[in-house]
Amino acid sequence: METGEKIRSGNIRAASRLIRDIEDGEPGTKEILKQIYPHTGGAHIIGFTGPPGAGKSTLIDALIRLLRKRNLRVGVLAIDPSSPFTGGAILGDRIRMQKHASDPGVFIRSLSTRGSLGGLSRAAGNAIHIMDAMGMDYILIETVGAGQQEVDIINHAHTVLVVMVPGLGDEIQIMKAGILEIADVFVINKAHFDGGAKLNRELLIMIDMSPIPKGDWRPPVLQIKDLEEQAAYEAGIGEVFDNMEKHRKYLFETEHMGKRMHRKMTRELEEALSSAILDPVLRAIADTGELECIIEKLVKKETDPVTVSEEIANKYLRPE
Amino acid sequence: METGEKIRSGNIRAASRLIRDIEDGEPGTKEILKQIYPHTGGAHIIGFTGPPGAGKSTLIDALIRLLRKRNLRVGVLAIDPSSPFTGGAILGDRIRMQKHASDPGVFIRSLSTRGSLGGLSRAAGNAIHIMDAMGMDYILIETVGAGQQEVDIINHAHTVLVVMVPGLGDEIQIMKAGILEIADVFVINKAHFDGGAKLNRELLIMIDMSPIPKGDWRPPVLQIKDLEEQAAYEAGIGEVFDNMEKHRKYLFETEHMGKRMHRKMTRELEEALSSAILDPVLRAIADTGELECIIEKLVKKETDPVTVSEEIANKYLRPE
Repeated sequence: METGEKIRSGNIRAASRLIRDIEDGEPGTKEILKQIYPHTGGAHIIGFTGPPGAGKSTLIDALIRLLRKRNLRVGVLAIDPSSPFTGGAILGDRIRMQKHASDPGVFIRSLSTRGSLGGLSRAAGNAIHIMDAMGMDYILIETVGAGQQEVDIINHAHTVLVVMVPGLGDEIQIMKAGILEIADVFVINKAHFDGGAKLNRELLIMIDMSPIPKGDWRPPVLQIKDLEEQAAYEAGIGEVFDNMEKHRKYLFETEHMGKRMHRKMTRELEEALSSAILDPVLRAIADTGELECIIEKLVKKETDPVTVSEEIANKYLRPE
Repeated sequence: METGEKIRSGNIRAASRLIRDIEDGEPGTKEILKQIYPHTGGAHIIGFTGPPGAGKSTLIDALIRLLRKRNLRVGVLAIDPSSPFTGGAILGDRIRMQKHASDPGVFIRSLSTRGSLGGLSRAAGNAIHIMDAMGMDYILIETVGAGQQEVDIINHAHTVLVVMVPGLGDEIQIMKAGILEIADVFVINKAHFDGGAKLNRELLIMIDMSPIPKGDWRPPVLQIKDLEEQAAYEAGIGEVFDNMEKHRKYLFETEHMGKRMHRKMTRELEEALSSAILDPVLRAIADTGELECIIEKLVKKETDPVTVSEEIANKYLRPE
């Protein structure tokens, strides 16, 4: 059986290897991606973002349990910011998730940053396609923070949950401004803690003040008491799931699925173009030794990055 | 006087306009960048990173005052994560910095994310060149977190300060693992708070355990009591400045300045290449209406991103 078929049959080893090969920039992965692409589109993709310590991993862990109880298959993609250079140990909280490792209905991968511009978001997009082709019903993506990188990654999702927690300081609270544009559902974790009511109020005011057209989706603000307590967990996580489903239904019943898919595809195309156009040029100048020579010249200020890039563009791009 | 000369004479209006034009992708900015490039290299560029709420802005504000007392000119570049889409309000803490706005020896800009892959880091690199050409003695860059985007930006710096604060939770503490590779100086803010001694101990152990070659720079861990108290401020901020200078001296007296410049130039070249090679292709397919057509096909799954990107690459790249 070739790799594409193995992946479609849900083979975890084949999927893991392909994700690793993509991260490592191994040749041949593009052909497999082309094969599996027509078999994607079945999964509902949920993005989880929010500041470190907000409880995203705990929430995801609880959701996995709920989804598995309903016999739904789950892929989890954790974007690991801990190790931009060496390439990712698993974060503390995520170790908890690893207990699902022996459940064949759960596939968890952690991606860290390697390679060039946009590389992580591209790898994430491809890992999502792979999980989708494996037949996962839900794919949960976890990212930290609200930088461009995270926004890029979260644009691969259909539904975005922003997880917050009271008491992380003013700076984070102000970050909400930017996050409103990507949030479909807000979850306030530990909402009974000091500052929880204030955070809830601020979010509601912010949503009220934002220009959401009539009939469009209004992000609900969910308050979760404590995921560690069994009863509160049942209620809270059930509410999170219900709102995920409500948003999914909304996407499919309105023209918004089209808009969301448009945004998602624009991002995927940009990433694929970077891989098809920029990477071969970078590889070519690295292989010929030209790159080292250029860097030396730049360090000595014998040229500048703009001039040298224009020269390279003239050499590698066709004239108009 | 043309723009390049105006910038070299320290004209703040000309510099502001050029930075805005670069952010907006206005044509003609590249020619000006080429002109000012030979006049860069005089500034010492310091990156400040760390989680939101760690006190980076307070520290930078205090450093500006110290540098101005010594009659040194300061550029500040704040990378604004608050608003990935709409393009940047000023964060709460940064408002404080604005009181320096009337001081002609201080130039503060805030960049937010717009445009395509790697765009923010590229804009940051160019803004640094502009401040450098203006004759700034120090350029202070502030970023949040440790994502790839932030690491990309911080690679524009000569010296990187990682600012931490006790009590932000385990997840952040574990993030230190990745941050060690970019940190030249650690600053623990509010070190007398609960958990401050533990954080200090953990950082020291981590540094001890890391394979720093003999004679190489060992990141010092500075403990700052409270920047709001005058006496503590004097001592703390003085120590931060002394360690910045010590690292600068180290860079110039060893071969490390070469290594650092190599890393910096590699990054700048990648960004300039993305602008020279990827952007014209994206622009070309957008201008002809081809882009919309491709996105539609992708949404309908009539093609896939890999195949379509290869077709575009064949059209725009010269055959080998």
